[in-house]
Amino acid sequence: MGGARLKDVAERAGVSIKTVSNVVRGEIRVAEPTRTRVLRAIDELDYRPNASARHLRTGRSGVIGLAVPELVQPYFAELATAVIEAARAHGVAVLVEDTGGDPEAELRVARGLSDPLVDGVLISPSRLDQAALVRGPRRVPLVLLGERDFEVPADHVLIDNVSAAREATEHLLARGCRRIAALGFQTSATRHTTSQQRARGYLTALRAAGLAYDPALTPPVRGFARAEGQAVTRGLLALPEPPDAVFCFSDLLASGAVRAAYDAGVRVPGELAVVGFDDIEETRFCVPSLTTVAPDKAQLARLAVDALLTRVTGDPEAPHTTIHASHRLIPRESTS
Amino acid sequence: MGGARLKDVAERAGVSIKTVSNVVRGEIRVAEPTRTRVLRAIDELDYRPNASARHLRTGRSGVIGLAVPELVQPYFAELATAVIEAARAHGVAVLVEDTGGDPEAELRVARGLSDPLVDGVLISPSRLDQAALVRGPRRVPLVLLGERDFEVPADHVLIDNVSAAREATEHLLARGCRRIAALGFQTSATRHTTSQQRARGYLTALRAAGLAYDPALTPPVRGFARAEGQAVTRGLLALPEPPDAVFCFSDLLASGAVRAAYDAGVRVPGELAVVGFDDIEETRFCVPSLTTVAPDKAQLARLAVDALLTRVTGDPEAPHTTIHASHRLIPRESTS
Repeated sequence: MGGARLKDVAERAGVSIKTVSNVVRGEIRVAEPTRTRVLRAIDELDYRPNASARHLRTGRSGVIGLAVPELVQPYFAELATAVIEAARAHGVAVLVEDTGGDPEAELRVARGLSDPLVDGVLISPSRLDQAALVRGPRRVPLVLLGERDFEVPADHVLIDNVSAAREATEHLLARGCRRIAALGFQTSATRHTTSQQRARGYLTALRAAGLAYDPALTPPVRGFARAEGQAVTRGLLALPEPPDAVFCFSDLLASGAVRAAYDAGVRVPGELAVVGFDDIEETRFCVPSLTTVAPDKAQLARLAVDALLTRVTGDPEAPHTTIHASHRLIPRESTS
Repeated sequence: MGGARLKDVAERAGVSIKTVSNVVRGEIRVAEPTRTRVLRAIDELDYRPNASARHLRTGRSGVIGLAVPELVQPYFAELATAVIEAARAHGVAVLVEDTGGDPEAELRVARGLSDPLVDGVLISPSRLDQAALVRGPRRVPLVLLGERDFEVPADHVLIDNVSAAREATEHLLARGCRRIAALGFQTSATRHTTSQQRARGYLTALRAAGLAYDPALTPPVRGFARAEGQAVTRGLLALPEPPDAVFCFSDLLASGAVRAAYDAGVRVPGELAVVGFDDIEETRFCVPSLTTVAPDKAQLARLAVDALLTRVTGDPEAPHTTIHASHRLIPRESTS
């Protein structure tokens, strides 16, 4: 059905081919009467924009993939929104994939096998087996959003997690805290590079302050979710010498930590100061509002989309780059 | 580049065409040695799954669009995740679009003009001009997730918002509240059908309890976000006769309301009971935890995806259906 072409629609509507194209792509504002005329012509001629033909001709679909471990984590929803916005500025659509943190799903996406239509993939990996990625074939360009193991041959965009964690810990030290717990250490089996980097920043700050490292204050977590933060903080508060502060590697862990303190009758920040990481929206509204490390998500997204599109349209063999986005600590009630 | 076909990959790897197809589509578990062999053959032959050719042949891309007003609203992130999961069960990918609540962007998506590759569109409209939608042409099947004006010719999947709002208000009445504010009324210019339905449920419950309606307790809001909830609640608490409870039409409004109460030194629930709507994850962890109406999001997503795929593969002219998903009120600390 519908053998009509762009040219036929333009003639019927009495406008240029470019105007029809603009209406169809929805990219540029077109005066309402003109738009209505074009849409009526599209309707009457049963015109279907032939994306497949364009795809075959250019080899590009104008769609990039974005894989995140969990869209229900507000950080990833906010990051995805920033990526959609950054891609839209280039006229590119985003296919958002939720891998559920499944390493096999991440590997499939990273190899470009998940959706055959995408021109390239942005991936914010959780447990990606990066060694497997090096060995395997890859169909489309890939940019990693977040930490990677150094040997993975891909561009990556990230913040300086070591410095960020160090600054968060120093903020607690400056407030007079001396038994500072860290929530986000992981055991070697599940260890994520991001966790390692933030642990390093925490330990560096303690050392610089002349404080001894107490492993009881860095219990391993299985993930960065609220329920985990709540359960592990419950354990910290039951220690013979409980902490006077806790630096959480995510705002969700911090949300769980504050909840556990409330349940145990421990005042935040009076008896337990809390710092989070990510600056998700709720941290400005929750009671108490949460001191947190804010990565510049809009900048992260812009840099990642730019790097990917450069790779898609440019030289796939060009040397891989590492690009840092900025971050800052935002003090709020939970440490005041 | 890469003239290799599925058949060539299968021969090279010594497996069936179906096995290659399974690896490429990533849909079915394949033993790791077999997968490795297939991926190596794909690499050696530089095979690119020819999605465009398949698209031209079947007229279907295996991708559906999902348009939400704002992915950064946790309700929509949770709903999107549920939709992705429901679609995955059918081997269908989801292109998530964030319309930013822009009526023009919503209309473009609803007409299937936003991405020419999608087979159909799920849309959770905020300010969609539904009259314009009726008049305009449409390229692909559409299912509305949420309330619609009755005359729009599309399937829609939703919860019974009138009953849900009535139950939430009755919960506050049963707790002894008598000056119950409602946060979510909108002026006629910005009024969303969902807002109207919830307002009706609230008013019905008041009337059944023999309480007079006080317009001072239903100030109009410009949207369902946290900052709006905070600002409008500030006004409610400054009334000569402030409310003893507030029923919020979203959890984000409730988050802002709790924040405003905290800032004003008003105890929740002691002096102000608060009920939200949506059951987003944070409501179980925030202090105090939030009583809320929980729509069954997994069911909503399943019903919507099923309705859309039925429309895509079946009769586009079949009568339009309205399908209700279930909901329940979850009592927590904010009304205890």
